[in-house]
Amino acid sequence: MKLLEERIQKDGIVKAGNVLKVDSFLNHQMDIDLFNAMGKEFKRLFGTVGINKIITIEASGIGIACIAAQYFGVPVVFAKKSQSVNIDGEVYSTQIESFTHKQVYNVIVSKKYLSPNDNVLIIDDFLANGCAMNGLLDIVRSAGATVAGIGIAIEKGFQKGGETLRAQGYRVESLAIVDAMNDETGEIIFRTQG
Amino acid sequence: MKLLEERIQKDGIVKAGNVLKVDSFLNHQMDIDLFNAMGKEFKRLFGTVGINKIITIEASGIGIACIAAQYFGVPVVFAKKSQSVNIDGEVYSTQIESFTHKQVYNVIVSKKYLSPNDNVLIIDDFLANGCAMNGLLDIVRSAGATVAGIGIAIEKGFQKGGETLRAQGYRVESLAIVDAMNDETGEIIFRTQG
Repeated sequence: MKLLEERIQKDGIVKAGNVLKVDSFLNHQMDIDLFNAMGKEFKRLFGTVGINKIITIEASGIGIACIAAQYFGVPVVFAKKSQSVNIDGEVYSTQIESFTHKQVYNVIVSKKYLSPNDNVLIIDDFLANGCAMNGLLDIVRSAGATVAGIGIAIEKGFQKGGETLRAQGYRVESLAIVDAMNDETGEIIFRTQG
Repeated sequence: MKLLEERIQKDGIVKAGNVLKVDSFLNHQMDIDLFNAMGKEFKRLFGTVGINKIITIEASGIGIACIAAQYFGVPVVFAKKSQSVNIDGEVYSTQIESFTHKQVYNVIVSKKYLSPNDNVLIIDDFLANGCAMNGLLDIVRSAGATVAGIGIAIEKGFQKGGETLRAQGYRVESLAIVDAMNDETGEIIFRTQG
C-alpha cells in the first residue's frame, strides 16, 4: 500500500537491533485518516470472504481494527493481556512471549465472544517473528472458529513470522512489507507487492 | 445518551462489589456502530472547543477514542502502560493505582506527542474513582497542554471520580451515569442528564 510505505519512509525511524519506530502515526500517536485508508484496503483485500468478526490484541492493534471494522460492518474482539491464568474455564487463554519486553504473558478471550460459528479476520499492527499472531491463532483454534485471513499493517519480511504463517496456509496480507532496513543510513527497502 | 443507557440496561451485567460488566459491547467485544453513535455525541458535546488531539489510555479507551477522532479530524495519542520508569527523559510518566488488578503501574506518553500547543479532549470508557483519569491529567499537565474536556462512556456516579473532577473545574461529559445498581435484582438506575 503506497500511502503507508510513503509514510513509513517519511516518519519511520530505523534503530539498531532491527527496530522500526512508527510511533508518530501508528502505535502511540495514531493518524486516523491513515487508519481509514488502511481499513479500506483491508476491505478491498478481504471483502469477499464473509467475515463476521475482527480479532486483534491489545493495545496497538485495537485502533486499526476498530477503524477497519467500519468497512466490514462487524464487531471487534480484542485479546486481553492478563496477569491471571484461566481458572474458571470462562476464557480461552494462551501464552505469548514478548521479545520487546523480554517476558511471557497470558492472553485471554472470553468464550462468549468466539465460537465455531465465527469466521474471523485477525488484524494487528506488526508482524515480525509471529509470536503474538501464533498466540491469537491458538485462541481462535481453541474456539473452533475459522481464520479467513490475517491483515497486518507492517510486516518485517526479514523475520520469519509471515513466511511461516503463509507456509501453514494462512492468507496473510501485509499493507507494507519491509525487506531490509539500515539503522546507519535510515534506508528502508519494501517488498514489491502485486 | 439514550442509546448507550438502553444498551447497558439490555446487555450490562451487575456483579457483586459494584462491578458493571459491559464486555459484550464496550471493552472486550466492541460494537463499532455504537462507538460511532458515541463519537457523534462527543462531537456534539465538544465540537466547539477547538481540540487538536484526543488522549486516551490503553487498552479499552483506544477503540472509542479512534472512532470519535474521525468526527473531530484529529489524531489520537494513547498513554502506554509501562514496566519501566522514565529514565531517559523522553517521556512524561505517572503512576496509576488499579483497583481492579490491585497494583500500581507506570503510564507514559512520549514528549514528542504532547506539548503546550495542545488542546486535548481526554476520552475513556469508564470513570469510577478517577485513578486512571488523574494519571492522564497529571501527564497532560506535565506537558503544559490544555484539557478542553473529558469524555467518558460510562461514569459510576456513586463513586467519587466525576464529582471530584467537576469540583476541580474540569468539564466532564459522561454519556451514561449510573447512580445506583443492584447485583441481586440487576437493576441499574441512570442519572437524568440535560
